[in-house]
Amino acid sequence: MAAKDLLIKNVQIVTDGPTYAEKYIGIKKGRIDYIGEAEPKGYEKADVIDARGKLAVPGFVNAHTHIAMTLLRSYADDMLLMDWLQKKVWPAEANLKPGDCYWGTQLGILEMIKSGTTAFADMYFFMDETARAVEETGVRACLSRGLTGDKYDKKDERIAENASLFKEWHGKADGRITVMLGPHAIYTCTEDFLRAIRDVSEDIGSELHMHLSETKGEVDDCMKKCGMTPIAYADSLGLLDRGLIAAHAVWVTDDDIRLMAAKKVRVAHNPQSNLKLASGIAPVQKMLKENLTVGLGTDGATSNNNLDMLEEMRLCSMLGKGVTLDPLCIPAQKALAMATEEGAKCLGYKDLGQIKEGYLADIVLYDMSSPAWHPLNDRMSLLVYAASASDADTVIVNGKVLMENRELKTIDAEKVYAEADRVAARLIGK
Amino acid sequence: MAAKDLLIKNVQIVTDGPTYAEKYIGIKKGRIDYIGEAEPKGYEKADVIDARGKLAVPGFVNAHTHIAMTLLRSYADDMLLMDWLQKKVWPAEANLKPGDCYWGTQLGILEMIKSGTTAFADMYFFMDETARAVEETGVRACLSRGLTGDKYDKKDERIAENASLFKEWHGKADGRITVMLGPHAIYTCTEDFLRAIRDVSEDIGSELHMHLSETKGEVDDCMKKCGMTPIAYADSLGLLDRGLIAAHAVWVTDDDIRLMAAKKVRVAHNPQSNLKLASGIAPVQKMLKENLTVGLGTDGATSNNNLDMLEEMRLCSMLGKGVTLDPLCIPAQKALAMATEEGAKCLGYKDLGQIKEGYLADIVLYDMSSPAWHPLNDRMSLLVYAASASDADTVIVNGKVLMENRELKTIDAEKVYAEADRVAARLIGK
Repeated sequence: MAAKDLLIKNVQIVTDGPTYAEKYIGIKKGRIDYIGEAEPKGYEKADVIDARGKLAVPGFVNAHTHIAMTLLRSYADDMLLMDWLQKKVWPAEANLKPGDCYWGTQLGILEMIKSGTTAFADMYFFMDETARAVEETGVRACLSRGLTGDKYDKKDERIAENASLFKEWHGKADGRITVMLGPHAIYTCTEDFLRAIRDVSEDIGSELHMHLSETKGEVDDCMKKCGMTPIAYADSLGLLDRGLIAAHAVWVTDDDIRLMAAKKVRVAHNPQSNLKLASGIAPVQKMLKENLTVGLGTDGATSNNNLDMLEEMRLCSMLGKGVTLDPLCIPAQKALAMATEEGAKCLGYKDLGQIKEGYLADIVLYDMSSPAWHPLNDRMSLLVYAASASDADTVIVNGKVLMENRELKTIDAEKVYAEADRVAARLIGK
Repeated sequence: MAAKDLLIKNVQIVTDGPTYAEKYIGIKKGRIDYIGEAEPKGYEKADVIDARGKLAVPGFVNAHTHIAMTLLRSYADDMLLMDWLQKKVWPAEANLKPGDCYWGTQLGILEMIKSGTTAFADMYFFMDETARAVEETGVRACLSRGLTGDKYDKKDERIAENASLFKEWHGKADGRITVMLGPHAIYTCTEDFLRAIRDVSEDIGSELHMHLSETKGEVDDCMKKCGMTPIAYADSLGLLDRGLIAAHAVWVTDDDIRLMAAKKVRVAHNPQSNLKLASGIAPVQKMLKENLTVGLGTDGATSNNNLDMLEEMRLCSMLGKGVTLDPLCIPAQKALAMATEEGAKCLGYKDLGQIKEGYLADIVLYDMSSPAWHPLNDRMSLLVYAASASDADTVIVNGKVLMENRELKTIDAEKVYAEADRVAARLIGK
């Protein structure tokens, strides 16, 4: 159901430097219908938000996460990867019961809305529960069931579950929900299994969301086994031709980057997770030179440990400069684009991630009153380099207000905390 | 004047994992007098803070900043270092008038208090104004006048100004203010000038705070000119024997690190500034192996662009792991120690930076109600890897409450914003 018409007045827009004239943004049928300094006609019956002192920014798009893993946040850190997975994460996940991921997703969405994120690409289990939480809370998401397996069987129950998720949810909730297939990784799927996923994705017309080249170990193993990099291997199976979000792409060669560019692979760069899990630092600046679409993701809250996209945007820019020793690398404007419109492209959108007439109305208003916003110089620079995600004040998705003056409209936070805490305690055997 | 006795009740302490029993913290004469589960006697007339649901953490110590540079925050970014300095920062600084740095410091202190920082080491100009703002607002600071110059003259007016700052302010404001001499860097001071500073520091008994080995260019030039690294060069002038905060130390050799360890140099590591200015990534893990004292700093708000120490703490840990490819590098506990007790050692304290009986009462209470604190597992990990500095709820310095329930007690924020905005506009010729 389309939201009521909405008129935002007295608002500054992040891309309007250096003058930042106060403007109106008019929203009809979930899209940005008007932007201008003059009051538009036809909004007499609209809801009105007075955004004086606030900055309008496209909602962040989290291009790779496992949202229900909020349930395991800070349960185990500072461990070797395989110890962490085998002794902590997997045993806890083995305790997941129906209903758990619904609350984990609610907690993650609550955190996202409060920190200015309006859309996310997810890969996990019990995705129907995630879809339900997305539908109810009003955010935008691209969902995939994490697929691991070992045989060529288009009717494998996990693949069938993902395909049925696609059938049931793709394009639903006023178009806020889309679905991809989620082959987990080359090291958790056999070649047969990956072929089966590729075939099903062709059959049903879905794109793919997959971890690729995350660690040096993954690349070394693939080279040993197949004589090619994970990117080349995935291409040899036809996966890159299906339309693909490649999460991580940390250990990629120049050839990999050119191949990804040729196949229009969209990369989800997860700088904080890559550092925390000691995976490394992705050569983002090389990808950008090849005009690859590179969005930003938080990965799951177990390896981050939050879903704060402003932090990822800042870190992406900082790492780019620090690693290349070039202070002009990934300037504020590019970092913001990666966190918004490039992320939207990762999710498959062509009309999302900018404050532009005709675009989907996913907008966040930031309160510019906290100390880090003073003096009020370049607003884009202040957002990218100085502000806090907690400055997010009002969040609009598909033209509907999900948070206003920091008050949540679609989520009962106390209920979510109580349920998520209860589930989490059971998962870790407390 | 010592603050009134203070009793914090129902508080969890960050180092009390995994059980986090609710405790009392009793504060008398600016020091932590009691920590325990039983209610202490002798606090009948004390002010009481009920800290249920809050986490007590030692106040962050910002071991290197130029606080009044908040005035130039986000005025110019994404530029080459020398363009940035010569075309933007220095011309703006040339417009500084008496009174300006007072407001820049007030803005910086306001930001620090709201983000859980209780002490800082500063190097800038008009330091008497900074001292006055520190005295009035109740925080703790170690101040030095940035010294650049070219001749051996113990009576050089800049050195004399720093020496008189020492005479007037060292140990003042109930011991909250200390003073060091601030030789800016080897490339802005001649050898003669550095000798003069060393001699005056001996005469008056002060320590030193100096930028050292920040960029590769600085090291290359020094090698060319003197045949030694900046650290070895500073040592050859006797500077390391005076007790010294070495800010940055990005491009240091293994020999440099051993030399600094032998001379008990305290390093102020500024990970975000080093990335943003494309200086590089300091080999912190090597310094820690040699048992060097390494604190954390934000550097000035022009190269960061905020004074958020929680961000530095997180980034320090993340970079350590990502660069070494060792997920155990700089675990949460070590990162927190660097942001607190190690920073306190940088400033010359032996009784600051821990929540411990007998220690100075600089304590921050974090509100654990925001989404990133759920589920409430390991509190230290949640603080270091998930929380936001904006979760700081109550701030105590020297036993005095500077902020309670996010309400500032010693600063008029609206006045500070107005004055700082006014000064900033003049500096950049708006």
